[in-house]
Amino acid sequence: MFRDLPVLARLLQHLQRIPYLASKNMYHVAEYFLRLKPDQVEQLCAILLEVKQKVGLCNQCFAWQEYARGCMFCLSSKRDQSLVCVVETWQELLCIEKTNGYNGVYHVLGGVISPLDGIGPEDLTIKQLISRVDNGIVLEVVLATNQTPEGEATAAFIASKLAGAGKDIKISCLARGLPVGSSLDTMDRVTVYKALSERRPF
Amino acid sequence: MFRDLPVLARLLQHLQRIPYLASKNMYHVAEYFLRLKPDQVEQLCAILLEVKQKVGLCNQCFAWQEYARGCMFCLSSKRDQSLVCVVETWQELLCIEKTNGYNGVYHVLGGVISPLDGIGPEDLTIKQLISRVDNGIVLEVVLATNQTPEGEATAAFIASKLAGAGKDIKISCLARGLPVGSSLDTMDRVTVYKALSERRPF
Repeated sequence: MFRDLPVLARLLQHLQRIPYLASKNMYHVAEYFLRLKPDQVEQLCAILLEVKQKVGLCNQCFAWQEYARGCMFCLSSKRDQSLVCVVETWQELLCIEKTNGYNGVYHVLGGVISPLDGIGPEDLTIKQLISRVDNGIVLEVVLATNQTPEGEATAAFIASKLAGAGKDIKISCLARGLPVGSSLDTMDRVTVYKALSERRPF
Repeated sequence: MFRDLPVLARLLQHLQRIPYLASKNMYHVAEYFLRLKPDQVEQLCAILLEVKQKVGLCNQCFAWQEYARGCMFCLSSKRDQSLVCVVETWQELLCIEKTNGYNGVYHVLGGVISPLDGIGPEDLTIKQLISRVDNGIVLEVVLATNQTPEGEATAAFIASKLAGAGKDIKISCLARGLPVGSSLDTMDRVTVYKALSERRPF
């Protein structure tokens, strides 16, 4: 039916490329854009272009930074530069930041090793992590990839690379166990097993 | 943490207004925009501005139209202009169009009567529907609002208004019953009751 609405069809084509807009929601989002006032459209376009100019990846940790301010992690004197948390993407970095309980810096991999999707170690920032560790400032690397087969394989790959580099650094990963507030009978048995086998003093 | 990323924070503020982007997805979408190439940003902005100029609501049926082409429903000689399907929004119109089984025209209400949200009959296009029916071309109105309390109340309100206008037109609504391919034991009892009480000859 969009044969009769070619301009609208082109907007929909654009929207289709945006992640997390399933086809039904897409029409809602399209309607949102259609109902914007002209000055709101200009504002949105201005901010998109400004973001493009002023925001980019830090070339040490690969988190987003504003060029004018520099990386809020790597250049911060309040953060422990010897503690590096390795995460898959910026979204996981935000999850850890939101805890307000981490004071180290980050290293964003940009994804996980996934041969089926054609993503190898060289497509991620693993090489940059190894050379970052080589400079001697880093004392501990926390591997915080997700508990998916790809995430765990990527963590194992990085751990072997770091061990192979012969540096005397600590390699750790996130604790596994029962989520806060959970009860045993609602958890799967692998989680309960992990919580039991990795039990800690009371 | 976005205190240190003011430009990015402004983009996120904009994205927050877009429907169906829950807060977690928003960061994915923000990252999508951050990774766009400059010419892709310009393309997107150009299409947004073009849509703004060229697309608007039909002032008879309130569906989206391209001004240069006119309304694809109201001006179509292939469509039955005497049959009007009343829908809540453009999304429901698309649902009916996708069936390829409806050859009449539409009337988009722009929402439903919802006193709690401060939406009264005067905020919808009900007055325009009544005067549209007054012109004598319309012979049947199908009330296709959703089966929510608000949707059904709106349909009842429109039906009483149409009856009160004293015109001799048919007012109908969508059939209720078992969805195609369903089995009785997976359906709720109200649906089964409706299917039974509104049974039809085999």
